[in-house]
Amino acid sequence: MDTAAMNRLWAVVPAGGAGTRLWPLSRAANPKFLLDLTGSGRTLIQATADRLEPLVGARIVVVTGAAHEEAVRRQLPQLEQVIAEPSPRDSMAAIGLAAARLELADPDFLIGSFAADHVITDEAAFAACVGEAAEVAAGGLLVTIGIEPTHPATGFGYVRGGEGLPGFPTARVVTEFVEKPDAARAEAYVRSGEYRWNAGMFLARASTLLDLLAENHPELASGLRAIAADASLLPEIWPGLTRIAIDHAVAEPAAAVGRVAMVPGPFGWEDLGDFAALAAMTPVGPYGLKVIGDESIVLTGNASGLVVPAAGRTVAVIGLEDVVVVDTGDALLVTTYACAQDVKAVVDELKQRGRTDLT
Amino acid sequence: MDTAAMNRLWAVVPAGGAGTRLWPLSRAANPKFLLDLTGSGRTLIQATADRLEPLVGARIVVVTGAAHEEAVRRQLPQLEQVIAEPSPRDSMAAIGLAAARLELADPDFLIGSFAADHVITDEAAFAACVGEAAEVAAGGLLVTIGIEPTHPATGFGYVRGGEGLPGFPTARVVTEFVEKPDAARAEAYVRSGEYRWNAGMFLARASTLLDLLAENHPELASGLRAIAADASLLPEIWPGLTRIAIDHAVAEPAAAVGRVAMVPGPFGWEDLGDFAALAAMTPVGPYGLKVIGDESIVLTGNASGLVVPAAGRTVAVIGLEDVVVVDTGDALLVTTYACAQDVKAVVDELKQRGRTDLT
Repeated sequence: MDTAAMNRLWAVVPAGGAGTRLWPLSRAANPKFLLDLTGSGRTLIQATADRLEPLVGARIVVVTGAAHEEAVRRQLPQLEQVIAEPSPRDSMAAIGLAAARLELADPDFLIGSFAADHVITDEAAFAACVGEAAEVAAGGLLVTIGIEPTHPATGFGYVRGGEGLPGFPTARVVTEFVEKPDAARAEAYVRSGEYRWNAGMFLARASTLLDLLAENHPELASGLRAIAADASLLPEIWPGLTRIAIDHAVAEPAAAVGRVAMVPGPFGWEDLGDFAALAAMTPVGPYGLKVIGDESIVLTGNASGLVVPAAGRTVAVIGLEDVVVVDTGDALLVTTYACAQDVKAVVDELKQRGRTDLT
Repeated sequence: MDTAAMNRLWAVVPAGGAGTRLWPLSRAANPKFLLDLTGSGRTLIQATADRLEPLVGARIVVVTGAAHEEAVRRQLPQLEQVIAEPSPRDSMAAIGLAAARLELADPDFLIGSFAADHVITDEAAFAACVGEAAEVAAGGLLVTIGIEPTHPATGFGYVRGGEGLPGFPTARVVTEFVEKPDAARAEAYVRSGEYRWNAGMFLARASTLLDLLAENHPELASGLRAIAADASLLPEIWPGLTRIAIDHAVAEPAAAVGRVAMVPGPFGWEDLGDFAALAAMTPVGPYGLKVIGDESIVLTGNASGLVVPAAGRTVAVIGLEDVVVVDTGDALLVTTYACAQDVKAVVDELKQRGRTDLT
């Protein structure tokens, strides 16, 4: 591992997104990344910081909505750098603003973006992977970490690895990023062995990232650099910035001209996108149900699935397979693994009804 | 209708039984008969009194547990006669004590027993049926009302009707009572056209009932008559009384010697024994779910079943068929119509765990 590269690496943690598919646990005011969804005693953003601190020490920047700044600082009191976005401007602006500030502080700084709400199970493999990626990034490429697909998921984008990168143990050139595929294409991607999931983990020199952005979205790059140089410009410039994801803004165009590398991530990864994903991470309890929370208040017979008794009330589940029961103080969800994606529609419906107290 | 017979009829309403299959709505401290399960605005025992008052006026006696006397009097303030049992001694003692008191007051009084927690949908047909049954009972027979089976139920006992009773429009001699049958026998009973459900509605002269009891269980009859003659004996005698259902104590032996008649009850009847039965009585709401309570706090997609949002919290149900969701302040039940009978096991389990606060 190029210790020099790791010593210059800053972790940027974009913490946005309400996680509406995890309603009623996740709410706009108390989103997914602020919740302990794994029963570990640490919230997802705390677990993210726990995972990064051994690698980068205090060099962590969280970029979050103004509404969540206080909660983030409360959950991560050791954190020095929290950037509050006045309004959501998607991942490119969030990560790019952190990059612009770091570029100004030291042109040799590297940044790595790591979502606040992902779960990674093999931290040693994660550390080794980030180490190699930082080394590759120090050479001037944009580097993504490609997750080994465990199934032909249609909910993630994919990244295609080409030839190996000389001088690195596992890194390869990226030939393309592809959007969320349909089931048949996902099947073909996984079968080919060439594709990996794009988990949104990008490493680059801060200046490389902004230079790539300047080539493709010059106004966005110059806006972010202007704010970094003079923070008082934030309220004026921020609202006009282009809303675009980092994948579209820089990763895809850079891959098209051979400037992206991929380091395979040989670790367990989960984005906890919905209750089926959450269930997949949760061990089966004593009565065949998976319980996140107090098992002693869950009763069951002939049932399987996930129960979250978050309201402290007794929950009895009888005779249902792959059911999802999420009990909170003001709202209750009953669904199935198969319908886990449809939970978003409930949140949309509640918003339409003006029930912002519940969303 | 023999108005003279109807003028001598007293309705005896045994109000016992927690209705554990309707947990968590029904609890020992707040049993089924005290609940408004139909959304009518009246509890089951209030609806029972509403149905009986046009037939018998103020001649209604409720026999209930001491723990529920106050609630019964509060729900039925117009009621003059409420007998509180010091401890449960099954239906023969409950109905027999009322009969013994009435026999003493007037040997010509008739009694009719009507459960506190049944639902009857055609009140005119019910009234006509009770009128004929009272007339038959005045002649000295024990009379039961036989409910037309709507399906081969295995949860009810059956009564078999024989030859017509001369001089009455629909009454027939009863040849036997049969216990809850298995599915094959229930099928055969219904197919034969000779069997009806035994809904526990019995009419007789008070003295006929007690004389029949004296023939079969002389100590029970004499104990009840002694208490009726001197109420101060209740605490001494009651605990030693035989626990037996009226069906076994008098109806079955009397049928065996040709002293029971049956009047067919051509009205809709439901004992609301479990959530599947409750669902069968509940109309489908606007989104395909049946809701007992506030429909405006239930959200759904691709779901069918019964939802009882009794805690006032928002309930979302997605992608489940024939599901049962019962949400109360301290406990939540999620099951299916098919498993409705298994709810009792949850209550048993909670009792074993010492959670009497929930049962």
